[in-house]
Parts: sequence; structure tokens; C-alpha cells
Amino acid sequence: MEIMQVIGSLVCTHRVAGLGHMHLRVLRSNKGKLSVAVDPVGASAGNWVFTASGSAARFACPDPNTYTDLTIGGIIDFWAPDG
Amino acid sequence: MEIMQVIGSLVCTHRVAGLGHMHLRVLRSNKGKLSVAVDPVGASAGNWVFTASGSAARFACPDPNTYTDLTIGGIIDFWAPDG
Amino acid sequence: MEIMQVIGSLVCTHRVAGLGHMHLRVLRSNKGKLSVAVDPVGASAGNWVFTASGSAARFACPDPNTYTDLTIGGIIDFWAPDG
Amino acid sequence: MEIMQVIGSLVCTHRVAGLGHMHLRVLRSNKGKLSVAVDPVGASAGNWVFTASGSAARFACPDPNTYTDLTIGGIIDFWAPDG
Amino acid sequence: MEIMQVIGSLVCTHRVAGLGHMHLRVLRSNKGKLSVAVDPVGASAGNWVFTASGSAARFACPDPNTYTDLTIGGIIDFWAPDG
Repeated sequence: MEIMQVIGSLVCTHRVAGLGHMHLRVLRSNKGKLSVAVDPVGASAGNWVFTASGSAARFACPDPNTYTDLTIGGIIDFWAPDG
Repeated sequence: MEIMQVIGSLVCTHRVAGLGHMHLRVLRSNKGKLSVAVDPVGASAGNWVFTASGSAARFACPDPNTYTDLTIGGIIDFWAPDG
Repeated sequence: MEIMQVIGSLVCTHRVAGLGHMHLRVLRSNKGKLSVAVDPVGASAGNWVFTASGSAARFACPDPNTYTDLTIGGIIDFWAPDG
Repeated sequence: MEIMQVIGSLVCTHRVAGLGHMHLRVLRSNKGKLSVAVDPVGASAGNWVFTASGSAARFACPDPNTYTDLTIGGIIDFWAPDG
Repeated sequence: MEIMQVIGSLVCTHRVAGLGHMHLRVLRSNKGKLSVAVDPVGASAGNWVFTASGSAARFACPDPNTYTDLTIGGIIDFWAPDG
């Protein structure tokens, strides 16, 4: 999974049926790359999240038939260097 | 999903049967990378779109047996920084 | 799908059974990256082709049990900027 | 599979149900890229591990319904140049 | 598929069950990137090989339940620019 930050939402009137009513978030990696993910956890702009890609992205949605290749898996509270 | 811009169409007389009659669009990322996607939503040159890759690309087609690894999922109207 | 150019063929005496008798082509992207693809369409050196990756690569073969992650999907005649 | 080093753990109160109670580790590649993986082998910070991605990541978990795209496959004792 | 060179073997006492007794090889791309692959063809250090990734990596193993995302598909004898 990747670590990314939510920077906004995406509005798309014309889209394929398989995405349902899921919110689409615009994410930015720490290298500045933008991606679009569906959001089943309710993240807000500024949140750091981790994302699941590939077929895991579909299964991570409440409806596994959602046609996504990137899904927000969780909101990061903090991460701790071990030991 | 990725954000890309439609820059043209691709003509291929010899192609595998599994792509049916789907239109093939040439897309460009904001870093200049070119890709080819099938287009079930009817995008035009200049449109900014988001794309689904991997197995999600197949399911996003009207015929899930379309042998694509990249499909246009929607045309972006605009995106809004939240908050 | 990606746009690549055929630059040669690959000879491999020892290979896994699952690739059958498919021809293996060496392809080069416009950034110089080399890849190996199976070729169900009969491309020649110098041809520009588009390729399907991931699970779509397997389904694009006449025998869907071909164990490939990259398959030539078609030979590009030309591409046209729209409009 | 990729070679990466464990540098910490991730705490996420809000996450999708499909990750169960698996530990989430933060990994760093030798190029400095950070990723998040589930850890069924019990790695510690500082360990060098190899990771399985894609659908293999799910199957490498005790519960194959874990919705991960990156799983630690083993802790590297050492690697030996052959011959 | 990618072209890579075998540079060594990997020893991992603690690893997930799903990799069976397959040998793990360390491979290097021509850009210096290191990866780990299972080896059903018996490659030696110095050999140039091509690799299958994703779900094809699993199917290319004698036991399709091997939890790998990278498998050596064949040893390259030579490659010939066509024509």
C-alpha cells in the first residue's frame, strides 16, 4: 500500500456505471504525483491515508463490484519507528 | 486511477479480436507519458479524464471480456480542493 | 495499453511450458526501456504496436492459458490528433 | 518480489474492515521509497524483507480475504552471489 | 516480460508457507534495480533471463498456488534484431 495525502475531490458528470456513488478523492504522493481513489472511509482534505491498488482496491469497497484500481484503506493517525 | 488528457485516436487494422469495436484513445499524463485506452464514455480530444487500470479496466467496459488494461472511467468536469 | 516498437526476437531454449509456441518479441518504449511480449498478431521489426499487460495479456492470446504478462494487441497504422 | 527494509509500524484507527488485525509495517526501498505492507511473519524494525505484491499479496496472508496489495513474504537472512 | 540478469540466491529462514521449496533468485535489471524471483527453470548466476510478473508469475510455477509475483520464464540464449 502507498502513503498519500488527500488534496481534494473530483467531479465527473460522465462516468462509467461501475463506480456507483462512491466519492472520488484526488491524492498526492510525497513526490507530487496525483492519483484518483474511491473513498469508503470518509477522509478529508489534508488527511494522510494509505491506499490499496490492483484487485485489492475492488475488494476493499463495500460493493466489491466497484470498478476501481485505487481505494483509500485507512486514515493514518501516526506512524512509529519501532524499537 | 490516473488523471490524463485525450490527445487523439489510434487506428489499428491488425489487432486481437478481444478489443471488439471499442474506440482506442491516445492519452497523455501531465509528465508527457503516452498511453492507449479504450473509451466507453465518448471522450473528445482535449478532455481531461481519469482511467482505471488492471483488471478494473476490463470490468469498466460494457463487455467485461474486452481485453484492455486501461479504460477511461469518466470525464473530469472539475476538481475542487476540499475545505 | 502502451505504445512500443518491435526491435527483434528472443530465442530461449529453456523456458516454462506455459508459453507454448508463441513468438517472443523484444520491444522498446520511446524512453528506451526493453520488454518482452508474446505476439499473436505477427508484428515485424520496426512496427509500432500497442501492448496489453497484466491479466489482459493472457486473455489477449488465442490460448488464455499462455503465461504472459505482456501481449502485442495490435499493429498501429497511424494515430490522429482528434478535431 | 522486492527487497525492502522495515522502518516502523503504522497506526490507523479508521480503516476498512478487510485488513483484519494484521500489523501494518512501513517499509523503505533502497531508493528511499516508502510503502505499507501487512506482516504475517513478524518482522522487526531494521529487518530486510522481501515483499509480494498484487494478488499474490492477498494469498500470502493466513486469511486470503485480507485486502492488501503488499505483504511481507519473508525475512532475509543473507543473500549469496552464486558460484 | 522483463529482461534481467541472475546475480545470486536468497536465503530466508522465516518465510510464508506459500512459496514451497522454490529457489529464490536475486535479479538485476539493466538499470541496476534488484528484484527477487522464484526459479522453476534452474538459472545460474550470470544468466540473462526473462521474467513474468503479476498473476502470470503464479501460473508459470509448477504449483500454481506458489505465492509469487515474479517468476523466471526462461533463460535467454540470444536475441536477434529481425530482418
